[in-house]
Amino acid sequence: MRPVMVLSAVVCAVAIAPAQDDARPASTNVRGAEYPRVHTDARVTFRLKAPAAQKVQVQPGGADNGLGKGPFDMAKGADGVWTVTTPPAVPGFHYYWLLVDGVAVNDPGSETFFGWGKQTSGVEIPEKGTDFYDVKDVPHGQVRAYWYHSKVAGSPRRAFVYCPPGYDANPTRRYPVLYLQHGAGEDERGWVSQGRANFILDNLLAAGKARPMLVVMDWGYAAKAGAKAPPDAFEEVVLNDLIPGVDAAFRTLADRDHRAIAGLSMGAGQALRIGLTHPDTFSYVGAFSGAGRMFDVRTAYGGVFADAAAFNRRVRLLWIGAGTGEEAFHTSARAMHGELDRAGIRSVFVEQQGTAHEWQTWRKALYDFAPRLFND
Amino acid sequence: MRPVMVLSAVVCAVAIAPAQDDARPASTNVRGAEYPRVHTDARVTFRLKAPAAQKVQVQPGGADNGLGKGPFDMAKGADGVWTVTTPPAVPGFHYYWLLVDGVAVNDPGSETFFGWGKQTSGVEIPEKGTDFYDVKDVPHGQVRAYWYHSKVAGSPRRAFVYCPPGYDANPTRRYPVLYLQHGAGEDERGWVSQGRANFILDNLLAAGKARPMLVVMDWGYAAKAGAKAPPDAFEEVVLNDLIPGVDAAFRTLADRDHRAIAGLSMGAGQALRIGLTHPDTFSYVGAFSGAGRMFDVRTAYGGVFADAAAFNRRVRLLWIGAGTGEEAFHTSARAMHGELDRAGIRSVFVEQQGTAHEWQTWRKALYDFAPRLFND
Repeated sequence: MRPVMVLSAVVCAVAIAPAQDDARPASTNVRGAEYPRVHTDARVTFRLKAPAAQKVQVQPGGADNGLGKGPFDMAKGADGVWTVTTPPAVPGFHYYWLLVDGVAVNDPGSETFFGWGKQTSGVEIPEKGTDFYDVKDVPHGQVRAYWYHSKVAGSPRRAFVYCPPGYDANPTRRYPVLYLQHGAGEDERGWVSQGRANFILDNLLAAGKARPMLVVMDWGYAAKAGAKAPPDAFEEVVLNDLIPGVDAAFRTLADRDHRAIAGLSMGAGQALRIGLTHPDTFSYVGAFSGAGRMFDVRTAYGGVFADAAAFNRRVRLLWIGAGTGEEAFHTSARAMHGELDRAGIRSVFVEQQGTAHEWQTWRKALYDFAPRLFND
Repeated sequence: MRPVMVLSAVVCAVAIAPAQDDARPASTNVRGAEYPRVHTDARVTFRLKAPAAQKVQVQPGGADNGLGKGPFDMAKGADGVWTVTTPPAVPGFHYYWLLVDGVAVNDPGSETFFGWGKQTSGVEIPEKGTDFYDVKDVPHGQVRAYWYHSKVAGSPRRAFVYCPPGYDANPTRRYPVLYLQHGAGEDERGWVSQGRANFILDNLLAAGKARPMLVVMDWGYAAKAGAKAPPDAFEEVVLNDLIPGVDAAFRTLADRDHRAIAGLSMGAGQALRIGLTHPDTFSYVGAFSGAGRMFDVRTAYGGVFADAAAFNRRVRLLWIGAGTGEEAFHTSARAMHGELDRAGIRSVFVEQQGTAHEWQTWRKALYDFAPRLFND
């Protein structure tokens, strides 16, 4: 009987595992890491081995985080392994970290993502029926680390530049450029790592829904050479170092008709300020979840809205948007759009249903924004 | 008197800080993070705020780590801040993590680096008089994230490709290619993030010490489509997916005379196996800290060494090296070189003085290896 019993045990073990657990490792995990696991109903199970710890918790990054409010207390098993399963999470990418006896640390199972001014953990919750940011078997553009010397900052800087499929194969073709900025506490890696901007463009281009373009993603902070602190010199870096450098290093269409600027949150404010006060440089502007606070249509952005007809002739797109789940941003963005509308200024207001101040909102913003660019 | 006293206190605080502390934030820190700090004598001070923790330690990654053996116990201050200063460290890049009540976690002050199968912290110790891997104000190549679909693995894969300065400006020029692999537990990001391969090439090229080349850095692991585990399919991915893809997507000189393969540790073994058993594909092979274990000159690598004269005519460079501080690797590499020498096989043996099984050895290996390539 014995061999048969052993065989049964093996068969049971193999058969039981999937039945106990409908979850899969998050796509944001380190390759091969089994936890965190995302269940089909979007609950997430976290796990950490910490036999000597007194208390372990999962802390979502920020109040509107789609994982929930947290912190979620983890329960300790006899083997020193702590676990917790959250309620169903909102789809999209969520920053989080673990609190081990009160110390904020990364989950070793997760890749790291630069946000909150540090490398944090992150978990991706799939959205049913939504695949516009997936890695598909379509032609892929290349994301290039582009190092340049900034005279303004007096230091080397790194930007990432998405070059669309075909860029190398068509060595005489020139391309329009979208400058695309991250939010506060993030950096030039955010739009690719968290935002999946390259895959969004790949998929839009494969479907014929957008024009081939370069996307330049720089670090949104800069101090002047010699200065240790603000005033912030990012605008000066963009205008004096980044754009001339990109126009020299890449085959761009180097005029206002073929240049856009957009950003999320802090980057939205930068896009509005830099874009609207330099109409000779940009003709498309996008503010993702960061428009409208303290907005006065008569005086804002150097009085660019004072002559509505002139603005409407000159600026091809002013895109304002937010998620319905980020109330303050949504309210102020809609208010700005309303004021512009009353003043006869053409702008587009796009809201993402149910998403908050998180990357899912900004992925969808880019997916809506990019097809509106450079359709001349 | 009171205003004067306050002023004095401020002046003292400002004046004392540098005198107490000759250290600077490590270049591997998150931007703006003050700790870890590296002293001029290469001691390192680590710091973590963890009021509720019972024990906090610094754990260097691996036995031969240049930070020392560790773990280093941190001492808790009245403010709940734990600190420790290590003995002087070996120059170069060292993986480490913190143990908070026994749990291995990242240092929030550090950038993260993929090693040991996870994202870890790392600290860079400058080497006096050594600047070949610094970011200098020279023309910079671009590191491109190159996504390709692997038929062998049945999945999308990402490799990084360094394109030298001038690649875009000379759209008809074709380039030789070095395939360059990381070690066990690392990934395709290692050679740029930890190894600074792009800056090493930039600096070599600016000094006229190497020929312009592409450097392709792929992930050194692969499972066959449908398989959940080994046998490892990396060799098949390289030969059937990666090289044909790179030759199609980039302007390469697509022949054996213009193709090299090298790697470190596990990657050295891969370079030897793939390179030496495919002499129609590669003519330069480099084994950084990973040559010679169980080496038999008569049978190794499909008998490629059986005909010494034929080998010497065909293989332009077989580079074998190690640091003197990694005894087992150094011994076996020298033994392999010795056996080859006795058999009349031409190879080059290069040792790095004092460095161990760490990235400083491999940076120096690349700096020695790259100038020997493609001098035809």
